[in-house]
Amino acid sequence: METALSNIEVLSPGARAVARCDIFGKPPYSETPAMLTRRFLTPAHTAAIASLQRWMRKADMSVTLDPLGNLIGRYEGSTAGAPALVIGSHIDTVRDAGRYDGALGVMLGLSCIEQLAAAKRRLPFAIELVAFGDEEGSRFPSAMIGSRAMAGLISDYASIAALEDEDGVMLADALERFGLDPASMSGTARAPESVLAYLEAHIEQGPQLEAEDLALGVVTGIAAQLRFRVSFTGTAGHAGTTPMGLRQDALACAAEAILSIEEMARQQAVHGAVATVGSIEAKPGAANVIAGETGMSLDIRALDGTLRDEMARRMMSCITDIAARRNVGVEFEQLQDLPPSPCDPALSGLLEEALGEMGLPPFRLASGAGHDAAALAAIAPMAMLFIRCAGGISHNPAEAVDPADADLAVEAMLRFIDRLEASTA
Amino acid sequence: METALSNIEVLSPGARAVARCDIFGKPPYSETPAMLTRRFLTPAHTAAIASLQRWMRKADMSVTLDPLGNLIGRYEGSTAGAPALVIGSHIDTVRDAGRYDGALGVMLGLSCIEQLAAAKRRLPFAIELVAFGDEEGSRFPSAMIGSRAMAGLISDYASIAALEDEDGVMLADALERFGLDPASMSGTARAPESVLAYLEAHIEQGPQLEAEDLALGVVTGIAAQLRFRVSFTGTAGHAGTTPMGLRQDALACAAEAILSIEEMARQQAVHGAVATVGSIEAKPGAANVIAGETGMSLDIRALDGTLRDEMARRMMSCITDIAARRNVGVEFEQLQDLPPSPCDPALSGLLEEALGEMGLPPFRLASGAGHDAAALAAIAPMAMLFIRCAGGISHNPAEAVDPADADLAVEAMLRFIDRLEASTA
Repeated sequence: METALSNIEVLSPGARAVARCDIFGKPPYSETPAMLTRRFLTPAHTAAIASLQRWMRKADMSVTLDPLGNLIGRYEGSTAGAPALVIGSHIDTVRDAGRYDGALGVMLGLSCIEQLAAAKRRLPFAIELVAFGDEEGSRFPSAMIGSRAMAGLISDYASIAALEDEDGVMLADALERFGLDPASMSGTARAPESVLAYLEAHIEQGPQLEAEDLALGVVTGIAAQLRFRVSFTGTAGHAGTTPMGLRQDALACAAEAILSIEEMARQQAVHGAVATVGSIEAKPGAANVIAGETGMSLDIRALDGTLRDEMARRMMSCITDIAARRNVGVEFEQLQDLPPSPCDPALSGLLEEALGEMGLPPFRLASGAGHDAAALAAIAPMAMLFIRCAGGISHNPAEAVDPADADLAVEAMLRFIDRLEASTA
Repeated sequence: METALSNIEVLSPGARAVARCDIFGKPPYSETPAMLTRRFLTPAHTAAIASLQRWMRKADMSVTLDPLGNLIGRYEGSTAGAPALVIGSHIDTVRDAGRYDGALGVMLGLSCIEQLAAAKRRLPFAIELVAFGDEEGSRFPSAMIGSRAMAGLISDYASIAALEDEDGVMLADALERFGLDPASMSGTARAPESVLAYLEAHIEQGPQLEAEDLALGVVTGIAAQLRFRVSFTGTAGHAGTTPMGLRQDALACAAEAILSIEEMARQQAVHGAVATVGSIEAKPGAANVIAGETGMSLDIRALDGTLRDEMARRMMSCITDIAARRNVGVEFEQLQDLPPSPCDPALSGLLEEALGEMGLPPFRLASGAGHDAAALAAIAPMAMLFIRCAGGISHNPAEAVDPADADLAVEAMLRFIDRLEASTA
């Protein structure tokens, strides 16, 4: 973890990727020394770009910073100007982040291209390494700005320009201070024909690979998400004098709803569906007062959008019945609706073949978390490779990745590139 | 409800008591204009003391503020320094409170003494009106601080001084800011021989009197209470990537515990037992993160102390099983243990005789709510008079009392004083 910049070249390609993430875990690559925080368009972002740019150039890449701060290193193919396999992930982080969420995917792509460049190998397609500037949405109240813009999914650039961070700095001003031209933002979008395919490697952020004792997994798709706020309205009353039979307890009603949500999600667990109540508030919130109001979040995810919608419908219907039986009012407010992004079966098949060649089981799993790949899927076939992370922990300084797993990831990605070459021949 | 301070003297004694509660329902007697909240040692408490002090002095009372902020107005007896009949209740409220819980008992006592003073009548005993500063425990995590201290039931004043409110203000500092001396706290305790008897009038906070179509009832005793803080420790995780089967969801565990508590209390409802979870917090408390920690309150009450203890034992055992099955840790911290407080039969007999003289049936009922009277019972015979409240609702802005019922209460209390005089002759 204390590898110096000058020593990383002696490491194996995977260990080098992990070491680069570790280097990026401190200032100047973090906004503060106390914890890793590297938000979009901050000086920590500038420092990350500067080092990546140097590494990219050293690996025979030509480097561009696009109008939204996405760093693009292009390793030319045997024919100049050929469409590119884009390998990408993000270099921004949440606050008090782990070192690998996002950064590892960029560093693994860099290791792959370093191997190709060292072998002076050129492919019939170019390979571009992209370090997206904003995926987490930890600075401005909008996530995946970089990848959505590149995929042409942003139509209203004026609202993006007007987004404000918590200090009231507008995104347009932050771009200018970063040396970029806000008026050119729409130029971030890429012509779909310039992208042959998109590949993203990312830590799993979940415990499945660890539970299966596997280093790598092939992602089947990125789950659809629905998010609601559920509000229960009962009657506040004295905890000592209101007989059990006369209560309209909003918190007890929410408790019954939480258990029914859990039970319904468990029934769909074989399909990779999950549902979570992570936040709750009971009012007035005193030990001696029956809760008159209770609000809670409801987050539902499934790879299959239809299943997700069916789950949401059944949960709302069941919660409505519970509330009616308890003479408690209930309201649902939908806060978020993200469609599913299935990975491309043919491209994922190449990844599975690569794992097979390595003697690894081609374990498939869905991604419950969102990724830049979900945006890129709009303009190119997309595949994702998951790398095991300790305890399934992410968005936490305790994130950890075994360098041996990272070596396997680089090998799988290089074998994927071989098979892509064979399939395009 | 819009009676001005200057007009209340023309009202009947009961209507005047109700009007004074209504006046106390808004700033400066409430911390906020949006709802009634008057917590211990806040500026709203200061405002209430200032007005009560003025009213007390006008009714020939000498006024003292004791070291814990209990306001005492003494209407001297025919012999100076005689033991006192103490008439008391509290002037603090829960958050978003009704106007009558506590305050009405103080205002009814005030109306009684105003009647005696107007008639220049002196009794062989003094009458003291006490407005306790903390009964609800809505600011610091401990209830009935004022009455417990007065009854000499607090031995460890250092822990009382160190109690912190939600803003981290220590009780000792709050006392100083209020103009009181924390070092004198132990001086709040009264010599038992100075208290002849204790009488408290209070809204029923339950539906029994309304169901019997009665204005008043004589309390047989105050239920035993146990209060716990229950803390669940699971594992925080990504809501999208942690499969249902691998979760240690502290909030889902708390939800199951809440339902089991409710079910067990329902089984004992015929014995008048109740159990309530009124407060809950889940951490980190984000929609996309599984709760790693959840804390909640548990309040158990029954007239029979043995039944209460048996319920608590069974609930803790059941919750422990639920947590173990979910691989979640659980801890119970007992915050309060109030034994049952039977009212004094002889003193209650005087109240029943008073009701009989008025042609009212001497209806007896138990109190599921705690009252300052439970503490005062440690140093004097104690009796309580309940006044009907609309729908049995309390701890809620919808609390309502009929001024005609309040007039009957003042009459019953004055007749009680007559009979106490006769019995001590």
